Amino acid sequence: MFRDIRRKAKLAGLPPGIVLENEEQKHEPTKITVVQYSQEDYQEWKGEDLDACPLLSQGTGCLWIHIQGMPHNHLMEQLVKRYHLHPLTVEDITTSSQRPKVEEFEDYEFVTLQLLTPHKKSQFTISQINLLLGKDYVISFQEVDSDFFSPIYKRLQSTSHQRMREQGSDYLFYRLIDIIVDYYFVVLEAVGGQIDEVEEKIIVNPKPQSTRKIYRLKRRMLVLRKIIWPAREVVSHLLQAEEKRISAFTRVYLRDTYDHIVQAIDTVETFRDMLTNMLDIYLSSLTNRMNEVMKTLTIIATIFIPMTFVASIYGMNFKIPEYQWNYGYYYALGIMAIIAIVMLIYFKKKRWI
Amino acid sequence: MFRDIRRKAKLAGLPPGIVLENEEQKHEPTKITVVQYSQEDYQEWKGEDLDACPLLSQGTGCLWIHIQGMPHNHLMEQLVKRYHLHPLTVEDITTSSQRPKVEEFEDYEFVTLQLLTPHKKSQFTISQINLLLGKDYVISFQEVDSDFFSPIYKRLQSTSHQRMREQGSDYLFYRLIDIIVDYYFVVLEAVGGQIDEVEEKIIVNPKPQSTRKIYRLKRRMLVLRKIIWPAREVVSHLLQAEEKRISAFTRVYLRDTYDHIVQAIDTVETFRDMLTNMLDIYLSSLTNRMNEVMKTLTIIATIFIPMTFVASIYGMNFKIPEYQWNYGYYYALGIMAIIAIVMLIYFKKKRWI
Amino acid sequence: MFRDIRRKAKLAGLPPGIVLENEEQKHEPTKITVVQYSQEDYQEWKGEDLDACPLLSQGTGCLWIHIQGMPHNHLMEQLVKRYHLHPLTVEDITTSSQRPKVEEFEDYEFVTLQLLTPHKKSQFTISQINLLLGKDYVISFQEVDSDFFSPIYKRLQSTSHQRMREQGSDYLFYRLIDIIVDYYFVVLEAVGGQIDEVEEKIIVNPKPQSTRKIYRLKRRMLVLRKIIWPAREVVSHLLQAEEKRISAFTRVYLRDTYDHIVQAIDTVETFRDMLTNMLDIYLSSLTNRMNEVMKTLTIIATIFIPMTFVASIYGMNFKIPEYQWNYGYYYALGIMAIIAIVMLIYFKKKRWI
Amino acid sequence: MFRDIRRKAKLAGLPPGIVLENEEQKHEPTKITVVQYSQEDYQEWKGEDLDACPLLSQGTGCLWIHIQGMPHNHLMEQLVKRYHLHPLTVEDITTSSQRPKVEEFEDYEFVTLQLLTPHKKSQFTISQINLLLGKDYVISFQEVDSDFFSPIYKRLQSTSHQRMREQGSDYLFYRLIDIIVDYYFVVLEAVGGQIDEVEEKIIVNPKPQSTRKIYRLKRRMLVLRKIIWPAREVVSHLLQAEEKRISAFTRVYLRDTYDHIVQAIDTVETFRDMLTNMLDIYLSSLTNRMNEVMKTLTIIATIFIPMTFVASIYGMNFKIPEYQWNYGYYYALGIMAIIAIVMLIYFKKKRWI
Amino acid sequence: MFRDIRRKAKLAGLPPGIVLENEEQKHEPTKITVVQYSQEDYQEWKGEDLDACPLLSQGTGCLWIHIQGMPHNHLMEQLVKRYHLHPLTVEDITTSSQRPKVEEFEDYEFVTLQLLTPHKKSQFTISQINLLLGKDYVISFQEVDSDFFSPIYKRLQSTSHQRMREQGSDYLFYRLIDIIVDYYFVVLEAVGGQIDEVEEKIIVNPKPQSTRKIYRLKRRMLVLRKIIWPAREVVSHLLQAEEKRISAFTRVYLRDTYDHIVQAIDTVETFRDMLTNMLDIYLSSLTNRMNEVMKTLTIIATIFIPMTFVASIYGMNFKIPEYQWNYGYYYALGIMAIIAIVMLIYFKKKRWI
Repeated sequence: MFRDIRRKAKLAGLPPGIVLENEEQKHEPTKITVVQYSQEDYQEWKGEDLDACPLLSQGTGCLWIHIQGMPHNHLMEQLVKRYHLHPLTVEDITTSSQRPKVEEFEDYEFVTLQLLTPHKKSQFTISQINLLLGKDYVISFQEVDSDFFSPIYKRLQSTSHQRMREQGSDYLFYRLIDIIVDYYFVVLEAVGGQIDEVEEKIIVNPKPQSTRKIYRLKRRMLVLRKIIWPAREVVSHLLQAEEKRISAFTRVYLRDTYDHIVQAIDTVETFRDMLTNMLDIYLSSLTNRMNEVMKTLTIIATIFIPMTFVASIYGMNFKIPEYQWNYGYYYALGIMAIIAIVMLIYFKKKRWI
Repeated sequence: MFRDIRRKAKLAGLPPGIVLENEEQKHEPTKITVVQYSQEDYQEWKGEDLDACPLLSQGTGCLWIHIQGMPHNHLMEQLVKRYHLHPLTVEDITTSSQRPKVEEFEDYEFVTLQLLTPHKKSQFTISQINLLLGKDYVISFQEVDSDFFSPIYKRLQSTSHQRMREQGSDYLFYRLIDIIVDYYFVVLEAVGGQIDEVEEKIIVNPKPQSTRKIYRLKRRMLVLRKIIWPAREVVSHLLQAEEKRISAFTRVYLRDTYDHIVQAIDTVETFRDMLTNMLDIYLSSLTNRMNEVMKTLTIIATIFIPMTFVASIYGMNFKIPEYQWNYGYYYALGIMAIIAIVMLIYFKKKRWI
Repeated sequence: MFRDIRRKAKLAGLPPGIVLENEEQKHEPTKITVVQYSQEDYQEWKGEDLDACPLLSQGTGCLWIHIQGMPHNHLMEQLVKRYHLHPLTVEDITTSSQRPKVEEFEDYEFVTLQLLTPHKKSQFTISQINLLLGKDYVISFQEVDSDFFSPIYKRLQSTSHQRMREQGSDYLFYRLIDIIVDYYFVVLEAVGGQIDEVEEKIIVNPKPQSTRKIYRLKRRMLVLRKIIWPAREVVSHLLQAEEKRISAFTRVYLRDTYDHIVQAIDTVETFRDMLTNMLDIYLSSLTNRMNEVMKTLTIIATIFIPMTFVASIYGMNFKIPEYQWNYGYYYALGIMAIIAIVMLIYFKKKRWI
Repeated sequence: MFRDIRRKAKLAGLPPGIVLENEEQKHEPTKITVVQYSQEDYQEWKGEDLDACPLLSQGTGCLWIHIQGMPHNHLMEQLVKRYHLHPLTVEDITTSSQRPKVEEFEDYEFVTLQLLTPHKKSQFTISQINLLLGKDYVISFQEVDSDFFSPIYKRLQSTSHQRMREQGSDYLFYRLIDIIVDYYFVVLEAVGGQIDEVEEKIIVNPKPQSTRKIYRLKRRMLVLRKIIWPAREVVSHLLQAEEKRISAFTRVYLRDTYDHIVQAIDTVETFRDMLTNMLDIYLSSLTNRMNEVMKTLTIIATIFIPMTFVASIYGMNFKIPEYQWNYGYYYALGIMAIIAIVMLIYFKKKRWI
Repeated sequence: MFRDIRRKAKLAGLPPGIVLENEEQKHEPTKITVVQYSQEDYQEWKGEDLDACPLLSQGTGCLWIHIQGMPHNHLMEQLVKRYHLHPLTVEDITTSSQRPKVEEFEDYEFVTLQLLTPHKKSQFTISQINLLLGKDYVISFQEVDSDFFSPIYKRLQSTSHQRMREQGSDYLFYRLIDIIVDYYFVVLEAVGGQIDEVEEKIIVNPKPQSTRKIYRLKRRMLVLRKIIWPAREVVSHLLQAEEKRISAFTRVYLRDTYDHIVQAIDTVETFRDMLTNMLDIYLSSLTNRMNEVMKTLTIIATIFIPMTFVASIYGMNFKIPEYQWNYGYYYALGIMAIIAIVMLIYFKKKRWI
């Protein structure tokens, strides 16, 4: 969970813009997809070496460069040269697990967001996505290899959905952010389902394991908060960007995304409150149970200890006059019965039974 | 409670403005009511096909189109064509359980609010209402079928209440919001009643079930918060709208509605605090009771265990000299009595009895 | 406490400005006091019908109309006609238990505040006061019948205190608000006294009843908060009013009132914190006591149960060799004594005794 | 602690600017010190009647009137006449235990602050200091009689420290505030020492008394908060005062004082958090101890109760076949030993021992 | 931890700008390093007397004076004379353990930050760093003697990293701040590791010592908060400084540092929440355990106490008819068995076993 801090700690003392050689990049080759589209046209190129791509030099319509996996240094150099990336942008792209943020540079807007990939149950993995919005291009860096953005390709290819191809790169940029935010809800739904499950158990039959589940869910909530809250700032900042970056047309859509993030935040906070309430309820049910256990013990002990005492008196080996009585035994039993009845009445009055 | 998140999760990856075919709409037909009114005139039309309505083309005075139930796609298309609805508005209208929000478009203001319908006790159902305020028309979409807005019809028909008919569509718009806010108080009153009930029980005779009731009420408070807080933002935003949208006349009334929402928020927060306090009190009363139970056990055990010990000593089968004493039995009883008295004095001093 | 919500709930669906016939108004007649004063002059009139008042038509100096009890409809109509009251103002005046608020209209400022009337101990009743500040008049509506504002009359009558009569209606308006705020402190002092009392009890000899007292005080704090916090907003808003409404002279005094309200809020928050701390202390003292009770039980049981076990071994009816020993009895007693001593040393080491 | 509220409650209904005759003022005479200084000159006068002071009429350089003890009415009148004090200022000066505040009048700035005088341990008394900054004079009112400001006199007298005498009255004014703020740290240090002490006790050997100490420290924290938070507002307001009141030169120093107050607030909040953490730790250590006590009881009882049961079976007076066995006694002892061993293994497995 | 407060308390009453003779400075000599660099040139001088440094008078390129250890008075005087330091700056430099802050003077920006030096485990020491940014010089005061800034020297010396030498003093200033912030993450990583460790223990096998560890970590969190939160304000303030102080080029980098601090704050808050959650979990696990202990005791006691009672009845020395029965013994054993079975069924139904 704190991979980002560990990474930051490693970099302490190094100047900004330093690119650490990354182990991962040696294993998985970086996949590059370049898409060029305009209202009339759609072209796609896939490969591993950007220099080999014929689309970059043509320059009509919008260009989308999508890079999956950690970009190797040569690729970064190509991009820096072509798109004048700032050293800090290079650092941010090659450093994984940044806090979601937006940075405005002269030539482009740079956005870092966290992608939530739902797993089984309420678990999810976090990976980083970096987006770069230039004048007529979008560059996206996706840390992990997944077909996350494939709906976008299909949309762009399709000739029946003109809206995306009519609009500029800012609309594509918005769509990428929108999909990332949509996945927040997928994860939140899974977590919500788990919370509902735990809630029912807590109410019907609270068990010690439930606390641990609540704890884990609470922790997950802390992670989600760290991801979703700053995402709101990011989109809020984009909404205030200049007209030339994000058109009025796209801005309306981005405002909608903003509303979605706020709703996600609301849900996270509600979940947190619910989990806290559950823990309170669980603790009070624990105390309740203890109360009942103690009551049972007390009732049994308080009835039988005095009776046993009477019995043990008449078990003493003294020459006790009662031993000679004809009905001594019944007399003793009678005393015990009276003790039991008195105690029961007492407990009845105290509403313990 | 999390229907909205589930829905959002289902839409992940789809472009904005997509309208999912909705199962509900097949069963219940959508009811449309069109009202046209001016200072002198009032006309009403009910039907299921908007094209059949003769009032739309006349164009004098204000127009109110009220749609109950999920609007089918054909209806939405008619509205889009006639009133230039934005794709996002179409999405919001056909997606139920949005967060309350307001969006300003060139031709209209779009407001989403949650309608609270009180049930028996402190329960309530939540349904969505979408309101659209244009230059001289109001379109309202009500998810569920209920006669919620019938007081408005009556008012408009009546010739003695001129105020509504004199004013433009913005006043009608305000009245619709005002009624929705009024129902917050109906629900809050029911919840308040339930809280009073639980409070009395907690004070007089706290029982384990009370915790569960408090938990459920707390959860309901979380839901109300999620509905009422954003409603405040909505009205606050409307108060800052341009003069041409909402006139100074209506603004005064809307400010009043704003005050009501703030009062509702205050009440929700007070209820939350009260419920938290109640849980604290309940927990302390539980601990109290446990204390008393433990004290009873301790007093009984601490008095009788030593006495039983003395009795069991004289139950041993040794040749014990005391057995030969004349008053050995009374001597043993005396020791026990002394033990009991000492213990009782000790407890008295400790203020346990 | 939630009279206001109940009332609001009753009004749901009705248009704004509706005046519900009020049962109370039938029983108690409304008392009207009209005061006209200027630097040289002071005239007072008391009655029940405003039309009969000769002072209204004269029109020199300032006019103060003070209405005690629920105003009947006829009176409201007279005031509406004469002072152009807005329908919302009429609604607010006739609806009791509003949240404190201020509304600016073209002709007047309208202020709603809550009057706290201290009872015995820390109890108090809440009633509403509505104040209307016009160009050269003040209208005050006091829900309950009390001589709350009598010091003001006396001041105005007195010829030696010129300040009030020299100043305009805004200074009178300030004085009315100031008195209301002063009573916050009267109530806070009573509550503070009660808190001190409970605090001492909690520290010296905590009892279960104390929790209930703390609970009640906490609840009262919630009520005071709901009354005093919005009062701050009211005065803050008045401080920003236009010069023609509230003169620079009066503004200095009003700022002082504002400081007083802030002090009252500080005190309410401090009281809340103190009560929460007390509950914590009480709970820890409860757990402490339980600890002590349990220790006593454990010490007694742990010493006597093993000893009793030894005694009961030698109470068995087997042919036990020890029975034949000469000092068998003393040997058994010795074993028991050793057990007791070992246990006591153990407890000593554990610092339980 | 709530002297201020009690006082306010007494004044309810009285007009502003009223001066209550104060009992204290009869006992202690008010001491007046007048200092006049300029770059070249320093003159000092001490007395009880301001009219007798020759320095007032000269009017070159800066004037500092320092009044110790409650000012009597005659003195106030002299000051009002000479320096045009506003009635509210007079009220604030004669009313002790105000909330720290600043008020800007035409002729002067008026500041009320609380002076903390440290006592033994972490206790302190609170007294009020009122400061008045005019064009070329400072008037200071100190409620209690102490040599608090004596370092300032010495500085002013000394010819080697020119800075103070070169600067105007605003620098003197700053120095007075700075000394008051310095004393916050003296008190905070004492409280911090006490907190350290309690903390060590809580960690090493928690005792019931510790809760009470924590409670008292928490209460003291509430008081300090009520004093230091508003002091920040006071200085923050002064920093925004006009150039002619507070020069750019002095402003730099005042900004430093502001930083100190923020540091004091930080410390208060840290202390509060620490005390809350301590209470949590204490409660968990209590529960821990109870756990241990209960375990001891349970282990002893659970081992010996079944064994005693076996012994009491063979204490029955039936004709039990085992009585005839040769090794019946050892057989019985064996059963008991097995019970004990089984139980010990069970507890071992449960990690209770 | 509260060295700063203790120091402040000692200074109470003294005028600002006073330099207390510091014990430390007598022992350790102050080390001075002066670096002069420009795009073409790099010169370094080390010594103890600033006057002996030949670099100060040359005046081309940027100058960096780095002072390790408490500066002695003579050094301060030299600096004051040469760089016109304000008396408050002198005070701040010689007073250790200030709150992080920034102050803008005519000739320079003055920044105080806290340097965190990680120790073994999650411990760290805090020392103060003061930075002064002038037109073409940076002066840095480092309280403790460590090679903290050595990476910077190396960078400056190296001819291959031109960026630093091309830029002005503001870039050097940014790099110093950046390194300090980097070390926040080093410490946070260590603390995070410790938290992970404690978390695992709490979940797997909670022990009383864990509370103390949590307490200590919570306390450390309070310290980190006091250091990192104000650091954010410092950098935020620098970002708003004038162009001539901090160039647009450097500002981009400083914004990155700001993002890092925000991330550090996020982490601190997350850690705090995690620790609080852990304590809750620990407490509930404690109560859970107690519950289990109590249940064991209750089950054993409730089964054996009634059986022992039956045995002790038949241990009485009365002439009991059952004694004469042939199967009296088995009859008694049967009664006991029935009691045991009934109890076990009861506990089974209650789900205790």
